[in-house]
Amino acid sequence: MSFEQLQKEIDLWAQQFTVPYWKPHEIIVRLLEESGELAREVNHIYGPKKKKSTEENKEMGAEICDIFMNLICLANSQGIKLDDHWKDLINKLNNRDSLRFEKK
Amino acid sequence: MSFEQLQKEIDLWAQQFTVPYWKPHEIIVRLLEESGELAREVNHIYGPKKKKSTEENKEMGAEICDIFMNLICLANSQGIKLDDHWKDLINKLNNRDSLRFEKK
Amino acid sequence: MSFEQLQKEIDLWAQQFTVPYWKPHEIIVRLLEESGELAREVNHIYGPKKKKSTEENKEMGAEICDIFMNLICLANSQGIKLDDHWKDLINKLNNRDSLRFEKK
Amino acid sequence: MSFEQLQKEIDLWAQQFTVPYWKPHEIIVRLLEESGELAREVNHIYGPKKKKSTEENKEMGAEICDIFMNLICLANSQGIKLDDHWKDLINKLNNRDSLRFEKK
Repeated sequence: MSFEQLQKEIDLWAQQFTVPYWKPHEIIVRLLEESGELAREVNHIYGPKKKKSTEENKEMGAEICDIFMNLICLANSQGIKLDDHWKDLINKLNNRDSLRFEKK
Repeated sequence: MSFEQLQKEIDLWAQQFTVPYWKPHEIIVRLLEESGELAREVNHIYGPKKKKSTEENKEMGAEICDIFMNLICLANSQGIKLDDHWKDLINKLNNRDSLRFEKK
Repeated sequence: MSFEQLQKEIDLWAQQFTVPYWKPHEIIVRLLEESGELAREVNHIYGPKKKKSTEENKEMGAEICDIFMNLICLANSQGIKLDDHWKDLINKLNNRDSLRFEKK
Repeated sequence: MSFEQLQKEIDLWAQQFTVPYWKPHEIIVRLLEESGELAREVNHIYGPKKKKSTEENKEMGAEICDIFMNLICLANSQGIKLDDHWKDLINKLNNRDSLRFEKK
């Protein structure tokens, strides 16, 4: 498993366009849009808000992947190698954060 | 002008229900939803994203007021007096932040 | 109580700078920042996440006012009169949404 | 490359705790926090906002991975298989969205 493949897969698609990636601010505004759609799903399924019938009924898994896609575009546009940062995150989980919650 | 009136106006409406205010987490998830809708408007009008025709065409001003309403509910549910905090904000603007940007 | 006064108060402050208001995308990215700070407060007080001691301990009321300020800047920069939209919102609350939740 | 491995890697870590995953609302509030941190980075590097020196200088790549981790937790807690939804997304990119932007 590597993020490199994932990033390449998206880059291959994006590079067919005259503007492969949006500007960082535009991507973040889009991230907020998509996070809002995921939030709506969660409030619909687990929360007090009744989703109105006109609202799009999109699955949680699809919304999560939309956010992934968006962030991969941000990473690609900035030349960020996610594998390196993911390694750091896993290290942090196994060290600093291993005592952050109550163990079984 | 006072936030107290604004908070009372909303409280009057909310108190007719068996559950006047949602829980803080539910309100924040709703805030994310509404911020996402505002973000969509902004990306639609100023950004690269074409809004699909099925997407609701709601005005920016209405979205802003939805967020205000939501945050007033959070404040009311927590007994927060917004006038006090607004005064602090104005003070900060006139002192610390008065040199933060380039003056005319 | 009117939003007009509130909008004027902020405009008076903003107009002293060479760039009174940021661009809409920049304001939305800032909105996400500030909403994130409010979310942190809520997860700290009501949620499972332990706030690390280095994290800024800012009050919920102050965070709410930061978001208000930000959105008033957006409205001002777009020539939006919030009073009109607030009236619509109150009308909607008293009509369509009056049956949305269980009454006392 | 598969999301399955990624999801298993995180699940292995999470299952050592008495509460492996937070509730959906808590995860979404955390998502908002983390998205806010990414937004701050972007506004710092590309935007008008000067980051104050006390603010944490965390890299964009690390923030992106934090959001990935958070969403993988949401998927795991809901039994969502991200590979299926990712396949759908790629299909959509190659069909419906292939004409959405101007081609080279």
